[in-house]
Amino acid sequence: MITSKNYAMVRIHPSSEVKSETIGDESVIWQYCVVLPGARIGKNCNINCHVLIENDVIIGDNVTIKPGVQLWDGMRIGDNVFIGPNVTFINDNTPRSKYHDFEIRASHIMSGASIGANATILGGLTVGEYAMVGAGSVLTHDAPSFSLWKGNPARQCGFVTRDAMVLNMRLMDKNGAAYQLVDGEPVLQG
Amino acid sequence: MITSKNYAMVRIHPSSEVKSETIGDESVIWQYCVVLPGARIGKNCNINCHVLIENDVIIGDNVTIKPGVQLWDGMRIGDNVFIGPNVTFINDNTPRSKYHDFEIRASHIMSGASIGANATILGGLTVGEYAMVGAGSVLTHDAPSFSLWKGNPARQCGFVTRDAMVLNMRLMDKNGAAYQLVDGEPVLQG
Amino acid sequence: MITSKNYAMVRIHPSSEVKSETIGDESVIWQYCVVLPGARIGKNCNINCHVLIENDVIIGDNVTIKPGVQLWDGMRIGDNVFIGPNVTFINDNTPRSKYHDFEIRASHIMSGASIGANATILGGLTVGEYAMVGAGSVLTHDAPSFSLWKGNPARQCGFVTRDAMVLNMRLMDKNGAAYQLVDGEPVLQG
Repeated sequence: MITSKNYAMVRIHPSSEVKSETIGDESVIWQYCVVLPGARIGKNCNINCHVLIENDVIIGDNVTIKPGVQLWDGMRIGDNVFIGPNVTFINDNTPRSKYHDFEIRASHIMSGASIGANATILGGLTVGEYAMVGAGSVLTHDAPSFSLWKGNPARQCGFVTRDAMVLNMRLMDKNGAAYQLVDGEPVLQG
Repeated sequence: MITSKNYAMVRIHPSSEVKSETIGDESVIWQYCVVLPGARIGKNCNINCHVLIENDVIIGDNVTIKPGVQLWDGMRIGDNVFIGPNVTFINDNTPRSKYHDFEIRASHIMSGASIGANATILGGLTVGEYAMVGAGSVLTHDAPSFSLWKGNPARQCGFVTRDAMVLNMRLMDKNGAAYQLVDGEPVLQG
Repeated sequence: MITSKNYAMVRIHPSSEVKSETIGDESVIWQYCVVLPGARIGKNCNINCHVLIENDVIIGDNVTIKPGVQLWDGMRIGDNVFIGPNVTFINDNTPRSKYHDFEIRASHIMSGASIGANATILGGLTVGEYAMVGAGSVLTHDAPSFSLWKGNPARQCGFVTRDAMVLNMRLMDKNGAAYQLVDGEPVLQG
């Protein structure tokens, strides 16, 4: 991650309010976003419109954030993460208005993971590398690397490869090809 | 649909960034919207605040789009469609960040259909004429004309008339009146 | 609620369009919000970015509204209510585009209640005092005071105290301590 205090190679739409000065080269922030001063955003990220990023947030490189998303204090986003439109995160699972001394329980999204559109991710969870949460799901448990989750509450319903090939719980793809886990990653059996 | 290149009878809030010049008479676009140049919007539409409309999108006449909605490349919206607040669409069901060569699989919403608030519509689906998707549902299959869907994943739980009368799976309304399908449309038995 | 026509002690971000003049002291309205002229907002409220508040809406004191929320005509929000990000409300359960004579069926959120992130609240419901609706839930029934609801459709899965301690359906907390209902409120058995 390169700190570009002068935004030399960063594009920020003038309608947005971006106070962070730690944004990597080639990153783009679109319309009507709010980015607080402490946020750290990597290189070559694409932050779509209507996004809020709080202070204590660290985002890796090559991350895509679609519209209508908020990233709360405590969140950590790895490299190459995809966060779909209207995905909703939480850092307090039992909120009350004006209780300011709650323990922040933010979620960490590891490199390569994808969070499907309009999914809800409870606080304090880890979504592992290249894991995928289906659109509209409500994630209430950690999602291990390369796992696929769907439903409300979300259940693991399979695996997913680095290239987004969906596998069932027996590690077979839609054509019947068999994969095996090698160091936790699904690999086509040779 | 009338192309009004000069927006003679179109109202666009000055806070919005609307680059399309193909917007029908009497349409209104409210605050903090983004409309890309290729989008085509019909007559007498009401586009609420915080909406994003991409380039390869065609919207019919008399359409209502509530706040917090994004319409992605490839989407087609018929006449008289209602899209509720925070409804979330998809055009890539297995997204990865920075994979730009995915096959776009957008959904088509046919004339008269209603998508309930905060529903999630997977990519590549067709919602038929006057079909209704319940609030908060996650639609993963095509919804035939005049069908009613609810849940996550959404299941067909009945039918709905053109005037939004809800019928159960046996085509009876809440008062016990019986309907029958005539050319696919529920009609009160005489 | 104090009417501060001159916004003496109210902070409104200049990017927002706030036409109401009935906003209580110490309230804050953040970026890219729309507040219509008839809305009444109490004291010490925190209205986050990307929020829409219609005309016939009354909000109490010390209310927190997170980003991406819309409050529709007919809604009533008590004191100390928490409304999470992207929570979606409804005031017409069977919408059709351009049907303007529908009966408004808005929901009332009573004092102290919390609506979890990305929850969907059907129209015409009452969420009782200190009730809690879980993140991502779809509420289709009234939630009594101090009740906890989760799922799609949401079911009551327990109780919650004023201080946000979660209890199961037998009024026991996670440590096994027993509570009893006193005038409807869970109280630790002494």
